[in-house]
Amino acid sequence: MISVEEAKHIILNSTQDFGVEEIPFIKSVGRILKETIVADRDFPPFNRVSMDGIAIDFNAFQKGQREFKVEGIQPAGSPQISLQNSENCIEVMTGAVLPKNTNAVIRYEDVEIKNGVARIMINEVLDFQNIHVKGKDRKVGEILIEKNTIISAAEIGVFATVGKSTIKVAKQPKIMILSTGDELVAVNDKPEEHQIRRSNVFTLVAALEHLKIESETSHITDDKPILKQKIAQFLNDYDVLLCSGAVSKGKFDFLPEVFDELGVEKRFHRVAQRPGKPFWMGETNACKVFAFPGNPISTFVNCLAYFYPWYYKSVGVKTKEETAILTEDVTFKPNLTYFLQVKLSDKFGHTLATPIKGNGSGDLASLVNADAFVQLPKTEETVYKQGEVFGIIKYRL
Amino acid sequence: MISVEEAKHIILNSTQDFGVEEIPFIKSVGRILKETIVADRDFPPFNRVSMDGIAIDFNAFQKGQREFKVEGIQPAGSPQISLQNSENCIEVMTGAVLPKNTNAVIRYEDVEIKNGVARIMINEVLDFQNIHVKGKDRKVGEILIEKNTIISAAEIGVFATVGKSTIKVAKQPKIMILSTGDELVAVNDKPEEHQIRRSNVFTLVAALEHLKIESETSHITDDKPILKQKIAQFLNDYDVLLCSGAVSKGKFDFLPEVFDELGVEKRFHRVAQRPGKPFWMGETNACKVFAFPGNPISTFVNCLAYFYPWYYKSVGVKTKEETAILTEDVTFKPNLTYFLQVKLSDKFGHTLATPIKGNGSGDLASLVNADAFVQLPKTEETVYKQGEVFGIIKYRL
Repeated sequence: MISVEEAKHIILNSTQDFGVEEIPFIKSVGRILKETIVADRDFPPFNRVSMDGIAIDFNAFQKGQREFKVEGIQPAGSPQISLQNSENCIEVMTGAVLPKNTNAVIRYEDVEIKNGVARIMINEVLDFQNIHVKGKDRKVGEILIEKNTIISAAEIGVFATVGKSTIKVAKQPKIMILSTGDELVAVNDKPEEHQIRRSNVFTLVAALEHLKIESETSHITDDKPILKQKIAQFLNDYDVLLCSGAVSKGKFDFLPEVFDELGVEKRFHRVAQRPGKPFWMGETNACKVFAFPGNPISTFVNCLAYFYPWYYKSVGVKTKEETAILTEDVTFKPNLTYFLQVKLSDKFGHTLATPIKGNGSGDLASLVNADAFVQLPKTEETVYKQGEVFGIIKYRL
Repeated sequence: MISVEEAKHIILNSTQDFGVEEIPFIKSVGRILKETIVADRDFPPFNRVSMDGIAIDFNAFQKGQREFKVEGIQPAGSPQISLQNSENCIEVMTGAVLPKNTNAVIRYEDVEIKNGVARIMINEVLDFQNIHVKGKDRKVGEILIEKNTIISAAEIGVFATVGKSTIKVAKQPKIMILSTGDELVAVNDKPEEHQIRRSNVFTLVAALEHLKIESETSHITDDKPILKQKIAQFLNDYDVLLCSGAVSKGKFDFLPEVFDELGVEKRFHRVAQRPGKPFWMGETNACKVFAFPGNPISTFVNCLAYFYPWYYKSVGVKTKEETAILTEDVTFKPNLTYFLQVKLSDKFGHTLATPIKGNGSGDLASLVNADAFVQLPKTEETVYKQGEVFGIIKYRL
């Protein structure tokens, strides 16, 4: 049995690059950018009017002139016009190119226009006021978005602005999610008394959807030859197998044997943690295998605590550790890392973690009442104190 | 001009119920649950073995018996068998029904099995140990998931478990996102010097995708009759119009007039905030109109600060306010609410907000460097101090 830290270390040393694909920019939210986005021109690309009003020659104002004949209009989207007479003005619209020979914009609120003459009602005007100067935000060629960014709505706007209608993103691994266990029936079926419905695979499908990974699912009964045959095929066809169940000490927990017989190199089996101790991990050249214990909370927390970091490192993303403050003492005697369900709340900029009482790793419904796990490290002490800070793994937005 | 608080108040009093639809449970992540999910049977549905090992009659152990002949096997997924002789035992697997006439499970680690006889190697065994008792987590009929929950992977597993292959969720509003402005060209086009590419509508599409709302986009040139004709159609065909641009004081900012002429009842125009002051909001019986100013950051922050809360309240979700601690003094003189871009970080359970220097509401690229806005309230003071706590609006996961 290895520690959580060792298990993480092994997994993070076993990451894999799945390559790059090009997709429409508008489909890329949540994907990982695999190119550097640079400014295709200056930002803004011209001296841009930033208030509706009039554009003047600042020198005329400086010399005391307050009334300016309106010489023309410069709307947004029109080619630049020129102020012909420096004692006149041009009406300008937000987003327009600043007219030639002008260098200050006075907003409509500070101007009175009558009979084609604009009178400026204020006494202070600054050189270049209300002008967003060409190249002020970014120069052509400057980096706007770094490679390996997780794409959000903010990046989508930038892609559009620089004309990237398609972008390069990390290809997603091809993943099969596999359940075993003769007690499981389909969601549509009515279980006999000794049966339950399949649920873990769907939790995993949803957890992968959060990473924008589409996955497939399959169920195999606890029959070793069938398991072996199907898994041999999956090892060939997929980049990653996520399994749920059949890794503990039961008489029908065939997975570790099957993997061994199929040449999957075991990296570890059993991690000093609760829930999810019987977690098995291994790999072939072509396929990584994460075999999670079958209890619902074990499967879920192992996916979040191990598969997520493995995925993020594989696609080049550096994740930030998040922490929270325990709101009450937690007593836990086993010498194991304890992933405890908590409800998070925010109070004056502090993130508080309140333990949710569940009935152990089988209590799927208790996940609904929580929104994260707090990771309480393996220690000789049995009490984690109120006010102490620990790492958290969130599973809600 | 009204305050941010008044604008929010008006918007939250103008929410709308879009009804309910039934969808496959596996497609429901991020949607809002519109039914109560109850336990269809006890959880667990039977006395469930929670460790691989042997099941015995606890009384026999109590009387000092340590060796038990193995009478049979109870795998997971098999109908319950019975222990025939209370001095024997049954091998049991995790997830199996506890055999009749047994009431304690001793895990394999604490047992030695030789020639069909299991010898218990420990001296302490508890009544009902390693048995997850029928109904312990939830009783049949008990509420598992409340109505109006935002669905995450955790809920997906519960839907599966109780056999809800389809579930009722809030219908999404039908939304048209509309850009105006003659300076805008398509993402695929090469802009002339006085032009820029359309970007706000795509930022909004992505921001709605975050809410699992699919939307459509349209662009209309700054031509009042065309605007009027198209918007009349959109007001008929959509539940919500999100507009970007043409709401300020420019000569071609036709939207407020057009809405007025089309009988859209104005709720407000201009909010005491930066960025995004010229925000216009109104409604007909059938359609809500959020007309955001056209600067990229104005559009984005208004969508997050007003449309998001409007949507969540419309579909029945109570959102939690989030806060963060300013890491440096911020000076801001105008008597306006200031939505300032910040980079969030987490330190010992504290959420820190570090201001990101941008060049005003046109500086789209600066959004990439931040991950939230901090909402600095309108005040006579001009300095918001390091260490003070303010509400935040996040836009990354």
